[in-house]
Amino acid sequence: MKFATVKVNNESKFVMTDEKGAAFLLLEEAAKKMNDSAVSIPTTLMECIQEGESFVEKAEKLYQWSLSIDDASLFIAEEDLQWEAPIPRPAKNIFCVGKNYAEHAIELGSEADIPENIMLFSKAPTTVIAHKSTIPNHQDVTDELDYEGELAVVIGKKGRVIKREEALDYVFGYTIINDVTARDLQARHKQYLLGKSLDGTCPMGPYIVHKSVVANPNQLQIQTKVNDEVRQKSSTEQFIFPVEEIIAVISKGMTLEPGDIIATGTPAGVGKGFNPPKFLHPGDTVEITVEKVGTLVNVIE
Amino acid sequence: MKFATVKVNNESKFVMTDEKGAAFLLLEEAAKKMNDSAVSIPTTLMECIQEGESFVEKAEKLYQWSLSIDDASLFIAEEDLQWEAPIPRPAKNIFCVGKNYAEHAIELGSEADIPENIMLFSKAPTTVIAHKSTIPNHQDVTDELDYEGELAVVIGKKGRVIKREEALDYVFGYTIINDVTARDLQARHKQYLLGKSLDGTCPMGPYIVHKSVVANPNQLQIQTKVNDEVRQKSSTEQFIFPVEEIIAVISKGMTLEPGDIIATGTPAGVGKGFNPPKFLHPGDTVEITVEKVGTLVNVIE
Repeated sequence: MKFATVKVNNESKFVMTDEKGAAFLLLEEAAKKMNDSAVSIPTTLMECIQEGESFVEKAEKLYQWSLSIDDASLFIAEEDLQWEAPIPRPAKNIFCVGKNYAEHAIELGSEADIPENIMLFSKAPTTVIAHKSTIPNHQDVTDELDYEGELAVVIGKKGRVIKREEALDYVFGYTIINDVTARDLQARHKQYLLGKSLDGTCPMGPYIVHKSVVANPNQLQIQTKVNDEVRQKSSTEQFIFPVEEIIAVISKGMTLEPGDIIATGTPAGVGKGFNPPKFLHPGDTVEITVEKVGTLVNVIE
Repeated sequence: MKFATVKVNNESKFVMTDEKGAAFLLLEEAAKKMNDSAVSIPTTLMECIQEGESFVEKAEKLYQWSLSIDDASLFIAEEDLQWEAPIPRPAKNIFCVGKNYAEHAIELGSEADIPENIMLFSKAPTTVIAHKSTIPNHQDVTDELDYEGELAVVIGKKGRVIKREEALDYVFGYTIINDVTARDLQARHKQYLLGKSLDGTCPMGPYIVHKSVVANPNQLQIQTKVNDEVRQKSSTEQFIFPVEEIIAVISKGMTLEPGDIIATGTPAGVGKGFNPPKFLHPGDTVEITVEKVGTLVNVIE
C-alpha cells in the first residue's frame, strides 16, 4: 500500500497504489462512487495520516472494491499526473538525524566523529519539493551543493516517552528524502539549519509506503546514483541508531505528532566524501532508491 | 499598538491594546459592531499577520472608533482573560540565533566561541506556551534546565534575498521568547535541536508589539529576573548581528514567510554562566522584560 499526493489537471489529489504501482487510484473519487458513508475519507494525505489506521483500512477496502468493479475512470496513469511531495507542506520542520552511519561520519571527519548520542537538526518546511521537481542550484549562495539519500519515517500517532519496543506502533509509513546540503554553509554557520534549509533542498517521495509493506525499517538496501554513477550503496542495517531508538530518544521530552517526518541519516558516499569532492552541478540527476520504499529522482537546475 | 491571543470563557480571541494596556479591545466583536465591510478582519492573529499592513490600518481604525463610542462591552480586563501565546502554533519551527551577544558566548566558553557567522538552530512548534503558563520541569530528562531571555522578531511579509536596508519592511512586530534550554541535552547531542525542543520550553508573549512602536530593535534594554534576582541585564545594542543582518543572512537562500518567528539570541547571565551554575528549579519564577515590548512571566512546574 503506497500513498502519494499528485496534481491532476492542476488540482491536488491523493492517490493510492499497490506493489506493482501500474496505475493510481483516485481515492476521493472512489469513495464518492462507492457512496458508502462508512468509507468517507479526508481531503488531504496529511489528514489521512492524522486519522491513522481507520483510514488505512478504508483505503484498502476502497482499493479492492475499485479493482473489482473494473472502472478505469477511477485510476490514473503516471503520465497523466504531476508529482507533489506526499506532504507538500509539513506542519513543522523536518527532523533529521546526523551521522547515523559510521562510515559517513568517518568520511566527513574521522572515527572521533561517530556520534555517541543522536544528533538532531531540522530542515524548514520551505525546503520540500516533489519527486521529479528541479532542485534549485543556489549558485549565488553555495559552491558545495551535496546530496544525501535517506530513508524517512512518517509518524502516524501522537506520542511522548515512547518505548523502543512500541516505537513502530507510532509510525504511519516511510518515504525517501534527499537531504540536499550546502556544505560550505553547514561548516560556516556551525549549527546545520542554514546549510540544510535552502529553498527546495528537501526532495521527498514519490510515495509514503505504509508500514505494513516494510517488515523492518532497519534492514533496507539504500542507494544513491548521480548521473548513473553509484555514489552511495549501503543498508539501513548500518544505522548507528535504529528507527526505534530514534523515536524513543526524540520523544523522551518532545511530543511527536502525526505527520512529523524524521529523516534517518545518510550512508557514506556523499560528494564531500570523495577526493576531490564530487559536488552537484547544474543538470545533474540524483536518483535515490530505498528497498520497498521506491525511487526518488530529481535534477539540479 | 499591541496584539495578543487570549482565551475568554474558553474561546480563542485576539485582542488589541495601546501603550497603556489597561483594557483589551476584542477586535472581532468591534468589527461586527462597526458593521462596515471595509473593516472585516480575519479570525486569528496569524491570519492578520499574513494580511499585513492593511490589517494594521483597519485595527487602528477599529481601536479609535471603539474608544470613541465608549462601549465597555468591546473591551476586556486582564483578569477576565487567559493568556495564549500570540501565535499558539507556529507553522514551522521557531528560528533561533545562537550566541548573538559576545559576553554570552564567552560565559559559555571563551572568546574563541564568539561566532564569526550567524549560528541558526530551531525549536519545534510543540515548545510554545503562553505568558503566565507553567514551564514543565522535565526532571526525568534534564538536570540542567536554563532560561534565556530574548527579543523575537515576527516576520510580516514573504521575502527572499532581502537587503539589509529593506529588512525592517519585512517585520510585522516583536515579541519576547524564553528560549528555555536543557544544557545537558544541548551538549550531549551536539546539534541544539533536542536540548532546545522539550515540550513547553518556548514561553512567548504576552504581545506582538507592532513595529511602529519600536523605532530601533537594536537599541532595547533587556532584563531577565529569576525570583526577583536580576540575572541578565543588557541591551540589544550588544547584538553581534543586528536584526537587519539576521534577516538578510537567513533570507539569502531561504524564503521567509509571514508569521515566521526569529529569536535573536540571549545576553550574558544564563544559569550555566554562573559558578556554581544557577539552573532552574521547580517553583522558580522567570520574568523577562524587553523595553517597549513587555514582560513575559512564567513559573517552573
